Amino acid sequence: MFQSLGARPLVFPTPIFLVGSYDREGKPNIMTVAWGGICSSQPPSIAVSIRKNRWTYNAIMERRAFTVCVPSTRFASHADYAGIFSGEEENKFEALGLTPVAGEHVDAPYVAEFPMAVELRLTHTLDIGLHTQFIGEIMDVKIDSSCLDADGLPDINKVDPVIFAPGARAYHAVGGFIAKAFSAGKSLRR
Amino acid sequence: MFQSLGARPLVFPTPIFLVGSYDREGKPNIMTVAWGGICSSQPPSIAVSIRKNRWTYNAIMERRAFTVCVPSTRFASHADYAGIFSGEEENKFEALGLTPVAGEHVDAPYVAEFPMAVELRLTHTLDIGLHTQFIGEIMDVKIDSSCLDADGLPDINKVDPVIFAPGARAYHAVGGFIAKAFSAGKSLRR
Repeated sequence: MFQSLGARPLVFPTPIFLVGSYDREGKPNIMTVAWGGICSSQPPSIAVSIRKNRWTYNAIMERRAFTVCVPSTRFASHADYAGIFSGEEENKFEALGLTPVAGEHVDAPYVAEFPMAVELRLTHTLDIGLHTQFIGEIMDVKIDSSCLDADGLPDINKVDPVIFAPGARAYHAVGGFIAKAFSAGKSLRR
Repeated sequence: MFQSLGARPLVFPTPIFLVGSYDREGKPNIMTVAWGGICSSQPPSIAVSIRKNRWTYNAIMERRAFTVCVPSTRFASHADYAGIFSGEEENKFEALGLTPVAGEHVDAPYVAEFPMAVELRLTHTLDIGLHTQFIGEIMDVKIDSSCLDADGLPDINKVDPVIFAPGARAYHAVGGFIAKAFSAGKSLRR
């Protein structure tokens, strides 16, 4: 039986991304977002939603660039930290013992210790309400070579990304393989 | 060591949502998206990206409403089907033996057999390229009462949603609990 929970920002799954940027003084920063994801295949693009009061907001507006860094589950506490504390007050890379790597294609840093990072050039901003959506064109996807599968593609269980459950506010791992996309459904064709 | 994979729509995790809509004739339809997610907390909003050539595109444009239905992993093949075949040619609810339920707050159907559904009123559209982003304000979240935890919140492992891994094009389950958000990071504070 369905129960109504009302008008709340609640759906499963949501990702955990760390958005990398340089502020006006060139200090590298990371902040955690769960409101975001791929939003177009061509040009390949990712959207992340950020509140105006976040330190990252002006950083992206000014440099027109950001990264989306994917933490593995062993960095879940680091990701949580980067969502609680502000880059206005400290260098979160230093506080967390993480290493900023300058983007190859864009003016933004990514996290050396994480298995996956995406470099993005800002293409659109959209004010929705409390959050503003930053849409970036993917310039490159970087992956730790130990996380590739036999076909040279990222293996999601090797990357071991973090999933966020809104509501219960819990971090989860990715579980086992269920089915092959663009394939499993064909068996249901009448 | 990082390896560049180039400019590709590739990040982990992405969700699997089934977008529900009525077409001009009132036929209920569902299509599968992996490009989407929550994009604002207030007003609570979800974005989904849909190509112009999809049957759902005009349906949402005309009715200004859609649902986001969350399949559990046992419906992974159904979700795959709804991403391969078009609502222009058939009633996918009938083809899959699923039951459309008329939205309580919006002019769009959701899937009775799935554990979770969100009713959305279209507020913005944004052409990004191959995909157009449809942003809807969440009017209600519906959950099967068997999927609630002791606090009355949706339990992500009971909902058992599907994760999509782009690149390898694989569906995965959600795994175990890792840490509590807005909490685990505080232990790293110096």
